[in-house]
Amino acid sequence: MSTRVGAVVPAAGRGERLGGGTPKALRPLAGRPMLLRAVETLLASAHVTQVVVAAPPTLVDVVGQILGPGVCVVPGGGERVDSVRTALDALDDDIGVVLVHDAARPLTPATLVDAVATAVLAGHPAVIPVLPVTDTVKEIDADGRVVRTPRRDMLRAVQTPQGFRRDILRTAYANRDLPVTDDAGLVEALGVPVTTIPGAEEAFKVTRPVDLVLAEALLADSLARDGQR
Amino acid sequence: MSTRVGAVVPAAGRGERLGGGTPKALRPLAGRPMLLRAVETLLASAHVTQVVVAAPPTLVDVVGQILGPGVCVVPGGGERVDSVRTALDALDDDIGVVLVHDAARPLTPATLVDAVATAVLAGHPAVIPVLPVTDTVKEIDADGRVVRTPRRDMLRAVQTPQGFRRDILRTAYANRDLPVTDDAGLVEALGVPVTTIPGAEEAFKVTRPVDLVLAEALLADSLARDGQR
Repeated sequence: MSTRVGAVVPAAGRGERLGGGTPKALRPLAGRPMLLRAVETLLASAHVTQVVVAAPPTLVDVVGQILGPGVCVVPGGGERVDSVRTALDALDDDIGVVLVHDAARPLTPATLVDAVATAVLAGHPAVIPVLPVTDTVKEIDADGRVVRTPRRDMLRAVQTPQGFRRDILRTAYANRDLPVTDDAGLVEALGVPVTTIPGAEEAFKVTRPVDLVLAEALLADSLARDGQR
Repeated sequence: MSTRVGAVVPAAGRGERLGGGTPKALRPLAGRPMLLRAVETLLASAHVTQVVVAAPPTLVDVVGQILGPGVCVVPGGGERVDSVRTALDALDDDIGVVLVHDAARPLTPATLVDAVATAVLAGHPAVIPVLPVTDTVKEIDADGRVVRTPRRDMLRAVQTPQGFRRDILRTAYANRDLPVTDDAGLVEALGVPVTTIPGAEEAFKVTRPVDLVLAEALLADSLARDGQR
């Protein structure tokens, strides 16, 4: 396996739960688009040598200008799975390890990117960063009736970047009939073991308006601390 | 069934994930303890006529002074289940509907309290407010290996207050051998249907330091808006 690490960022989604009209990945946080923050974190990792972003097809040029010449931007598809496939195909041939990262996790620390890449390079074919779940989680039926309460201490909330041996992820995505829930889920469906490593609180996904409030508050705290130095 | 509604708040926990040393329920948010905010919300509901708080045994008097004469404070137990049991026993005999509310959800809107109470009064024996889950959730084994990925669209994160017919909750808590995960889980174990209603983003649980950042930011926004009126 080549040990060169690349990253793909599916960023073609609209993010309707967030509101505001702007494509989700381009929503600014403290003045800079979420996607730019996410990509900068990937590039800040000691491991990542190539980043491919799948953008909304009409915004490929705009996104390319925002991200600068070091980042490859490709037109994303209607579904996340299409965006990841297209971005995977655009990676250099000698990339042996792929990280898949959400644009909507703009405060992910570079140390987490490194930890995921390191675990794959150490021999784990699929690695996901996870946190304990704070709320009780119920499985419901179509009528909103509770049907099962999984043991909370055995549940983990999955973050990104998720790391994979490239050949395995390519195989997982080659089967178009697989039920697509998440990248690791595709790999699980192949019978490949998926390893968990500790995630990071700051790597939360910006999905709802309150997530924007939290992200802005954390950035303001961080800027305030920087100002005190 | 009596239609009088009471609320119990187990608030004897230490909240170690939050850090800081103070018992979790007494952690201030914008200068006022989380527990006080949670109790005020319950009392702001048009339905709730009695509130019983289970406090750390050594702090019953202090908590009583913080909450004022309208709130009954009892010594909580070592486990959450013990605190809920003690608080349930302290409710007036003619309370027919019980809400169980986390002290650590200080920004819960009173409208959510009303919605839960209304659903129980409408005939649902057990009602929980829930939100969709934003992260993929995995079930893992003791080695941190992923064993199952439940369908995310059928998962819900559970908030509080949770509402119950009092007789059913009393029966659920009478069986000391039940595995205690959450209040609704005890009721499910009896075979009683548990109904979900839409939760509220602001009703998130303050568990980790980032949750405190979010709560403070939301309160600051709210105070700023009030100041503009």
